[in-house]
Amino acid sequence: MSVRPSNLDPKIADRLKRDPNGLVAAIAQQHDTGEVLMLGWMDDEALHRTLTTGRCTFWSRSRQEYWVKGETSGHQQWVKSVALDCDGDAVLVRVDQVGGACHTGDRTCWDADVLDAVVGERPDAGS
Amino acid sequence: MSVRPSNLDPKIADRLKRDPNGLVAAIAQQHDTGEVLMLGWMDDEALHRTLTTGRCTFWSRSRQEYWVKGETSGHQQWVKSVALDCDGDAVLVRVDQVGGACHTGDRTCWDADVLDAVVGERPDAGS
Repeated sequence: MSVRPSNLDPKIADRLKRDPNGLVAAIAQQHDTGEVLMLGWMDDEALHRTLTTGRCTFWSRSRQEYWVKGETSGHQQWVKSVALDCDGDAVLVRVDQVGGACHTGDRTCWDADVLDAVVGERPDAGS
Repeated sequence: MSVRPSNLDPKIADRLKRDPNGLVAAIAQQHDTGEVLMLGWMDDEALHRTLTTGRCTFWSRSRQEYWVKGETSGHQQWVKSVALDCDGDAVLVRVDQVGGACHTGDRTCWDADVLDAVVGERPDAGS
């Protein structure tokens, strides 16, 4: 696994469990409404920039470069909080999203393709 | 990339953009509160079972087997809706989570490790 050089605090870097490309998943969630906006990817440096600049920075797997969300679209993500999950392979970034988070213009990346699903009910619901 | 045989509707399977292990990311969110509970992984068959049984099924990367959430812990995830994202590599499953979603017993996998972060403010906030 390749871990690119970064300025990330080593105490955080030590807790990351990166995929073979050196990345952790990054879920962006609107801080007040709870909407799950998008899933991106961060390497150590992208996480460092996200923690220190007040704006979400991702690693673009297709372009192989850093990508400050909203830099071209204007649809910035202003960081409210960042947390690492229990096994160190996913961060949850609570943000204030300007406009649509999805590159299609939709508010979230899950607005357009809802699948048919059987709905489950917990046995004790309502009791 | 290995795609295991599955019963998933081919019209859905055709839209999936799987990682080299044949998996898509699966975010579980509490349907009413909006809490982001956990991030798991699904192959085609796990997604099929999630869509058809009313309970979340994941693929365990560590154990290399299907895993019905809550089967041993009792902390089931009852499915309310499932959506595929714009580029086909992540699903959002809205669920009714019984008890804690995290294997540590925490409600979510992001409760325990909040990182220090600079908070950003959109320039036009309040205007």
